[in-house]
Amino acid sequence: MKGIWLENNQLQLRTDIPTPEPPPGEALVRVLRAGICNTDLELLRGYYPYSGILGHEFVGVVAQGPENLLNRRVVGEINAVCGHCRFCRSGNSTHCENRTVLGIVNRHGAFAEYLCLPVENLHPVPDNVSTEIATFTEPIAAALEIQQQVALSANHRVLVVGDGKLGQLVAQTIALTGCELLVVGRHPEKLANLAARGIKTGLAKDVKDRFFDISVECTGNPEGFAIARRALRPRGTLVLKSTYAGNLNLDVSSLVVDEITLIGSRCGPFPAALQLLASEQLDVTPLIHARYHLSDGLAAFEYAQTRGVLKVLLEIGD
Amino acid sequence: MKGIWLENNQLQLRTDIPTPEPPPGEALVRVLRAGICNTDLELLRGYYPYSGILGHEFVGVVAQGPENLLNRRVVGEINAVCGHCRFCRSGNSTHCENRTVLGIVNRHGAFAEYLCLPVENLHPVPDNVSTEIATFTEPIAAALEIQQQVALSANHRVLVVGDGKLGQLVAQTIALTGCELLVVGRHPEKLANLAARGIKTGLAKDVKDRFFDISVECTGNPEGFAIARRALRPRGTLVLKSTYAGNLNLDVSSLVVDEITLIGSRCGPFPAALQLLASEQLDVTPLIHARYHLSDGLAAFEYAQTRGVLKVLLEIGD
Ligand SMILES: [Zn+2]
Ligand SMILES: [Zn+2]
Repeated sequence: MKGIWLENNQLQLRTDIPTPEPPPGEALVRVLRAGICNTDLELLRGYYPYSGILGHEFVGVVAQGPENLLNRRVVGEINAVCGHCRFCRSGNSTHCENRTVLGIVNRHGAFAEYLCLPVENLHPVPDNVSTEIATFTEPIAAALEIQQQVALSANHRVLVVGDGKLGQLVAQTIALTGCELLVVGRHPEKLANLAARGIKTGLAKDVKDRFFDISVECTGNPEGFAIARRALRPRGTLVLKSTYAGNLNLDVSSLVVDEITLIGSRCGPFPAALQLLASEQLDVTPLIHARYHLSDGLAAFEYAQTRGVLKVLLEIGD
Repeated sequence: MKGIWLENNQLQLRTDIPTPEPPPGEALVRVLRAGICNTDLELLRGYYPYSGILGHEFVGVVAQGPENLLNRRVVGEINAVCGHCRFCRSGNSTHCENRTVLGIVNRHGAFAEYLCLPVENLHPVPDNVSTEIATFTEPIAAALEIQQQVALSANHRVLVVGDGKLGQLVAQTIALTGCELLVVGRHPEKLANLAARGIKTGLAKDVKDRFFDISVECTGNPEGFAIARRALRPRGTLVLKSTYAGNLNLDVSSLVVDEITLIGSRCGPFPAALQLLASEQLDVTPLIHARYHLSDGLAAFEYAQTRGVLKVLLEIGD
C-alpha cells in the first residue's frame, strides 16, 4: 500500500508498504482523511526518534473488526495501551508504560491507505459530522483535556497564548465555558477567525500583567511561555499545551513566591470531542488551509511548514 | 535598641536603632526568641534586595497593642497586607500587591529587641508551648501550606527531597496524613531524626523512578529538583517549597508528555501550626543546633552557614 514514511529525518512516499494484518484485539481501518499536526513536523525535525508511517489525526472506515464497527466511519484514540500495567489499572491509561502511539511511538500511523488500532480505541463518527470535520477530533480532544485538569467557570479570566492550529481549538473549546477569555497571537488573519466567533483577541502588548487566573501556552516557544507566565495572578495556573524544542530556562523562585501552578496537558477525551462536533458548537472549517491527495503527501508537508498555514489535510480514500 | 542590620550584603550588630513606634493598627512586640532561616541566609547573599533589620521567625510579648493581647506571648504572620487590593479581596492576602514582609520586604524584622506588626497578624502562643518551640510556628505553617494546595491522603505515595530545616518540618507534617512517605537527603545524622519518629528515609539512589504521586522539593538545588522530577508517576505533582539561586533549566516537554503538575508553595496557616505544636504532634527539639544571645548575632550567622547545621536560635529577651 501507499504511505508517507519517515526515516532518518527524511520523508518518503512509499508504494511498497505491506498492508498490515490486525493482531488479535485490533481492527484494520481503511483511512479516508488525515490531518498534519505540529507533532508530525516535530518528528520530521527529529525532536523525538521515530521511523515508520507518520500521522495520528484521521478518519477511516473499519475494514476488518467486530460486526458493530464494520464498514462504519471511525476516529481513533492514539495511545494503544496494555491494560494491565500500574498506570492502566489506576485510570491513567494514556500514560501506559507499555503504550505504543499511532504514528509517534512504535506504531505505524495514519498517512497510509490502512492502519491498525485496538478495537477499544475506535469511536464511530456521528452521521451528521462530515469526514473532513471529524479529522479534528483528536486535537479537539487534546484541547478538552485542559478542562479535565482545571475546572473552568464563567468567573475565570483565561488567556490563551497562540493563534495556531492548537490555539484556535483551545480557544474555541474554552470559550464554551463562558469565562472571560482573551486570545493573543501574532497573525491578525488567524485571530480574525476567533474574533468572528465573538472571542476577544489581541497582541502580546494587550496582556495585562498579573491579571489572569489561568493561562494556556499553545505556542511551544519561550516568548509564548513568558507571556503566559507574566499574565498570571499569584496562585494562578499555567497550562502547558505545547512541547518545546530543548529546555526552557525558568525562574522557579518566582513560581514559589507567587505560588503558581504549572500543569502539562496532552491527550484528551474523544467522546466529548465528537459530541461538540455533532452539536455544531465548534467551527473548524476556517482552519483548513489546504487539501492534498496522499500521492502529493510530500508537497503537503512542504506546505504545512509554511509560516501562517493552519491545518493541511490528506485525502487518502473515500 | 539592639538589632542585626543588613546593608549591602553586610551584617552589622547595631545598638543605635531607634525603638519603633507602632503606627495605627499595629502592635509593638518585645522579641523573646527568633530563628535564623534559609531565607535570611539568601538575603545575606544578596538573592533579593533588602536592607534593614533581618528576621521573620519569632516569639515575642505584646508591649503596646489591644488589651486582649497585651503582655501575652505571640507569634506573627509575616505578610503585612493592605486589605483592599484585588488579591486581599479575593482571599489571597499573602499575595497582597502592597504587602510588606517582616525582615524580607520593606519592613524591619525580628532580630532586634522590638518589632511592629499589624494586630491581625498576631496569634497568642498556647500556654503549653514553650517559647523556644513556638519559634518554629512560621516554618511549620509554611510546611502546612502544602496540604492547603494538594489533598494528601493515606493512599498517596509521597517523596520529600531534602533533610534540612524545611525538609524536616515538611516531612513531619506530611507523615501525620498517614501517607506512604519517603524522605531522602544527604546527611545520615539528619535523616536519623526522622527515622527516630518512624519515618522511612533514604538516599537519592533509593528513589524509584516514576513511583510517587507527589514529591516535595525542599533543597533549592537543581540536583534535588531532578530527583523530585524523576520520582513522579505520570500525572504526579511536584511541590516547589524552596527558592533557587538563578534559573533552572527545565525539560518542559517532558512535563507536557507526562502531564506533570508543578506547584509553588510559600506561607501557610499559623493557627493550624500552633495547634500541631500544642497537641505535641511534632518534635522540633532535635532541629535546634545552637542558641546565641542577640549580642553574638554575627557569630550565630556564621554558625548557621556551616554545612550540616539546622536551626540556630537567637535569645533576645525573657
Ligand atoms: Zn498499560
Ligand atoms: Zn492587599
